[in-house]
Amino acid sequence: MNAPRRLQVAVVGAAECPPELAALATEVGAGLAGGGAVVLTGGRSGVMAAASAGARAAGGLVVGVLPGADARATPPNPDVEVALFTGLGQARNQLLVLSAGAVVAIGGGWGTLSEIALALKQGVPVVLLDSWSLQRPDGAAEPLLHEAESAAEAVSLALALGRRGAAGGA
Amino acid sequence: MNAPRRLQVAVVGAAECPPELAALATEVGAGLAGGGAVVLTGGRSGVMAAASAGARAAGGLVVGVLPGADARATPPNPDVEVALFTGLGQARNQLLVLSAGAVVAIGGGWGTLSEIALALKQGVPVVLLDSWSLQRPDGAAEPLLHEAESAAEAVSLALALGRRGAAGGA
Amino acid sequence: MNAPRRLQVAVVGAAECPPELAALATEVGAGLAGGGAVVLTGGRSGVMAAASAGARAAGGLVVGVLPGADARATPPNPDVEVALFTGLGQARNQLLVLSAGAVVAIGGGWGTLSEIALALKQGVPVVLLDSWSLQRPDGAAEPLLHEAESAAEAVSLALALGRRGAAGGA
Amino acid sequence: MNAPRRLQVAVVGAAECPPELAALATEVGAGLAGGGAVVLTGGRSGVMAAASAGARAAGGLVVGVLPGADARATPPNPDVEVALFTGLGQARNQLLVLSAGAVVAIGGGWGTLSEIALALKQGVPVVLLDSWSLQRPDGAAEPLLHEAESAAEAVSLALALGRRGAAGGA
Repeated sequence: MNAPRRLQVAVVGAAECPPELAALATEVGAGLAGGGAVVLTGGRSGVMAAASAGARAAGGLVVGVLPGADARATPPNPDVEVALFTGLGQARNQLLVLSAGAVVAIGGGWGTLSEIALALKQGVPVVLLDSWSLQRPDGAAEPLLHEAESAAEAVSLALALGRRGAAGGA
Repeated sequence: MNAPRRLQVAVVGAAECPPELAALATEVGAGLAGGGAVVLTGGRSGVMAAASAGARAAGGLVVGVLPGADARATPPNPDVEVALFTGLGQARNQLLVLSAGAVVAIGGGWGTLSEIALALKQGVPVVLLDSWSLQRPDGAAEPLLHEAESAAEAVSLALALGRRGAAGGA
Repeated sequence: MNAPRRLQVAVVGAAECPPELAALATEVGAGLAGGGAVVLTGGRSGVMAAASAGARAAGGLVVGVLPGADARATPPNPDVEVALFTGLGQARNQLLVLSAGAVVAIGGGWGTLSEIALALKQGVPVVLLDSWSLQRPDGAAEPLLHEAESAAEAVSLALALGRRGAAGGA
Repeated sequence: MNAPRRLQVAVVGAAECPPELAALATEVGAGLAGGGAVVLTGGRSGVMAAASAGARAAGGLVVGVLPGADARATPPNPDVEVALFTGLGQARNQLLVLSAGAVVAIGGGWGTLSEIALALKQGVPVVLLDSWSLQRPDGAAEPLLHEAESAAEAVSLALALGRRGAAGGA
């Protein structure tokens, strides 16, 4: 009998970020790995690299879903252990969020916003940490969207939300 | 010698919308077609169908970029003349915006937001009409993002912005 | 009441080809357009450009489904009237064949073979013209696969096969 | 300092296969894992499941790149430890081969052929084992294409070819 697959959680954020956000991302990555989750990221620098470093230092498995077709086009950060080279550009954001039981968004620019939106569109819960402030234009509440005040809270929310579904891509 | 390709403009918005938004979308579709642009949409109902109907009634060419793998999975609306069946689900949003010289977003939910974000991430100008109100978390201005007060203003903005680049996907 | 969408037929082949294959592709493009079909290609040079030129000269509509994210990355050939910039690289082959009621493969290298295989995998009929010779390893017959002896035969086969389904992506 | 990423090798083949091919796939999966490679598959049944079982039993890491958007659409086989839900249908074949330093094709139908062709088109070496017999229509030799007589030979070829590049997606 096989053990069930582990929860997969995506950490998304910009490829360039100030040190405070990188510190949050490292703490989130470590917390998720400590909680037993596989950490998925876009595989690049900034928030993605910081989350990867935190997760790996905590003994976790780090999967990078890269936009380029190979390591020359988009080199993975050094803490990516499994690298998926998609060659899809920003369309890779789609499979990153679909493969996650929950998404943690830290800071972020337009790419991050696309990941938040793609997740919510397709039923994947999102935890915002120092990220976009979002309200639907029709004013409707979005039960899948959560805001965390700290890295620790983001971790517990993501683990809890992800576990409600199955082991990622639920 | 060939004529240069025509400008391609995408109209994005939700598959369900109130009549006021549908009326705006129809007017935008007609205006874009009247201005000589090929109208791209996601090919489905709601804002997409209304924009398609407006464009086609004005004699324009309407291209639908559908999420499903065939017409059974995701039937195009009746005004789609060229139907691209992508089988990519919401990842089709990526090619819809990349193929446009400008994007007009009308109303919209999370899917629309993903299209706005993917466009801005990749340098495609966006005109918002009764749509999301967006400000980057870092407060930075986004020169590619515009708000229109009317369908007519959305059309002129999109045509002007699109023409600054080449004929779509500039 | 809207007219039904027109049949969409894809012509696939290599970006570099000898003059004999280009001549066949031009004839196929012209024949398909003359038969009322919208011609889809990968939008680039070689077989794709020749088929586009033939179709456009015959008054047809030519849609190019390009691998790059914009016209700088992958310039469409001059006879492409609607250009889809996918940014998906060779994954664009998938939507090219899914959007076709039938595929005509002329000559071709590995990219062409991937298009033939993706079409057959997903139920889209393929007409081979001076192209790969294929037999399943299990020896099973493939009812969707046809060989033509001439451009004219390729055109009639593709039009007939495409019409059996709906207007492309059937 | 981080260890370099491990070699990633894809094993591709049909979702239904006779017991002889399943036995070969299991042996290949085990050999690749024993050689230190991460094993990538399409995540489903048949050859994919057999390769996954072999790799996991040998202590390897098994990554499944699934066509569906979630586990309900396309359930991973029980030996997939990291599941990527792409929602891309057969376009997922593209990222499966791009992420591999080498591809082993076992038996196979049209989907497998598309993976072989996409790999060769993009410079990824392919080892055939009881699979398609392929010769370019122009008669040109294909230095990236290899045939193995046994599972053991397929494993050594794939490991050697993959190591010539970097750790997958080289």
